[in-house]
Amino acid sequence: MMVIKIGGGRDLNLDGLCREIARRHSAGERTILVHGGAETTDELAAALGHPAQYVTSPSGHVSRRTDRRTLEIFEMAYCGQINKGLVERLQRLGVDAVGLSGLDGALLRGPRKDTLRVVEDGRVRVLRDDFTGKVEQVNTRLLHLLLAAGYLPVLTPPALSYQGEAINVDGDRAAAAVATALGADTLLLLTSAPGLLRAFPDETSLLPSLTANQLLIAFDYAKGKMKRKVLAAQEAIHGGVAHVIIGDGRVSQPLQAAMAGNGTHILQSSAMAQTQVNHAS
Amino acid sequence: MMVIKIGGGRDLNLDGLCREIARRHSAGERTILVHGGAETTDELAAALGHPAQYVTSPSGHVSRRTDRRTLEIFEMAYCGQINKGLVERLQRLGVDAVGLSGLDGALLRGPRKDTLRVVEDGRVRVLRDDFTGKVEQVNTRLLHLLLAAGYLPVLTPPALSYQGEAINVDGDRAAAAVATALGADTLLLLTSAPGLLRAFPDETSLLPSLTANQLLIAFDYAKGKMKRKVLAAQEAIHGGVAHVIIGDGRVSQPLQAAMAGNGTHILQSSAMAQTQVNHAS
Repeated sequence: MMVIKIGGGRDLNLDGLCREIARRHSAGERTILVHGGAETTDELAAALGHPAQYVTSPSGHVSRRTDRRTLEIFEMAYCGQINKGLVERLQRLGVDAVGLSGLDGALLRGPRKDTLRVVEDGRVRVLRDDFTGKVEQVNTRLLHLLLAAGYLPVLTPPALSYQGEAINVDGDRAAAAVATALGADTLLLLTSAPGLLRAFPDETSLLPSLTANQLLIAFDYAKGKMKRKVLAAQEAIHGGVAHVIIGDGRVSQPLQAAMAGNGTHILQSSAMAQTQVNHAS
Repeated sequence: MMVIKIGGGRDLNLDGLCREIARRHSAGERTILVHGGAETTDELAAALGHPAQYVTSPSGHVSRRTDRRTLEIFEMAYCGQINKGLVERLQRLGVDAVGLSGLDGALLRGPRKDTLRVVEDGRVRVLRDDFTGKVEQVNTRLLHLLLAAGYLPVLTPPALSYQGEAINVDGDRAAAAVATALGADTLLLLTSAPGLLRAFPDETSLLPSLTANQLLIAFDYAKGKMKRKVLAAQEAIHGGVAHVIIGDGRVSQPLQAAMAGNGTHILQSSAMAQTQVNHAS
């Protein structure tokens, strides 16, 4: 079983990837697609006169300010436009895709942050009307039901809080939670870079492989959105996923390239790393 | 099994209805909710600078002009905002709702109209870039899978064309197709009126019941959106659904009121009508 996470970036080779997913699916290999949509949400929010705001935590972590109106716009973009666009595209390729948000069947569940501490003009403020949180539980029963019946799940935030509210959660970490809960062999995080770079944005400084023990070093190299991917990789590895790949989504065959060894491969142990490289070659 | 169809109107008592659905669901009675969202789509389309256009066929039938951009906005409103809003609301009431569009698992499938003939300034024009169609097939396997596992499906257009394109389909008729395919006992179409009125908009002119044979008369009375509901009722009755109710969605307990005999009840035969009235009383 493989969990593939894609962002919403325009430079992602969606056409190539969907064809690869269709081939995998028709070969009977179980696949789950998880997607983001931050860019689309930002554009939609701006067009609707409720432009995206990003807030910074006291520890320097940047996240989307998600008030109730933003959540509604988020759902339009993620669950409406992007999720249904992907399902349509996969259906056209003969893949019986089923798009679900974390709300559906309480697929992705976790706590909402009651308060969000943010730094504004050098002062800490507490926000109470923010709808963000994290995924702690995955409804694997629903996913197994769909997989066993031959469907390919296409999953998207938001998640459902324990109080029954829609909450904005990070897509990379949601994908890690899904991969962990399902005991997936591989989590593939596709991005707009060759993988994790030692000296961002120098694309020749790619780190080709890391073991679980080396992940702490990876945090030092990760910039911007890559931090979340490294965090997701760490959570998946700790959760028992054998193999996490941060791969390039812009190439002609993103899935094949990643499986052939391109990108940054993160493995449970160096022994497994060797097996994996032999397997991939 | 009951299929309940709601529009997206602001005067619908969504809170009351969802509580009734939660009670039905916890009593083990199988229910499917189908929803529309034309008003929300119109508002969103206007806000995004792509205002809704309605076209009139040579026979006088009015429908939404659905170019590709409109379809995207339609998906934002129907599949994003409204569908996920309903799923969240039901989950908060303890109902394990799963929201699906007609694209997901090819749930609602049918032909796209290749060309749309419209009347403009008294002249007939042919539109070729329109994405509308109708539902001919329902993926009952997926619905049974979810129902058997205790989920409550919340369904929405668009449907999937035979060529794999998203198509705008009428929600009332989609609900009739679902009720027919599943062999539902009852199709409840909730609206912003007491039912079918003999002299619209006089709310005292309600037609309390009709048999299948009397449906042709009903078309003479139906105005505006009610025409589609009568057509949906006819399709469901012809498809074997025993009981169709056009009920008032604005009252405090829309489901109970309809089951108690309010609204317009359409039945296969007058013998059944008698049984039904006895049963409802």
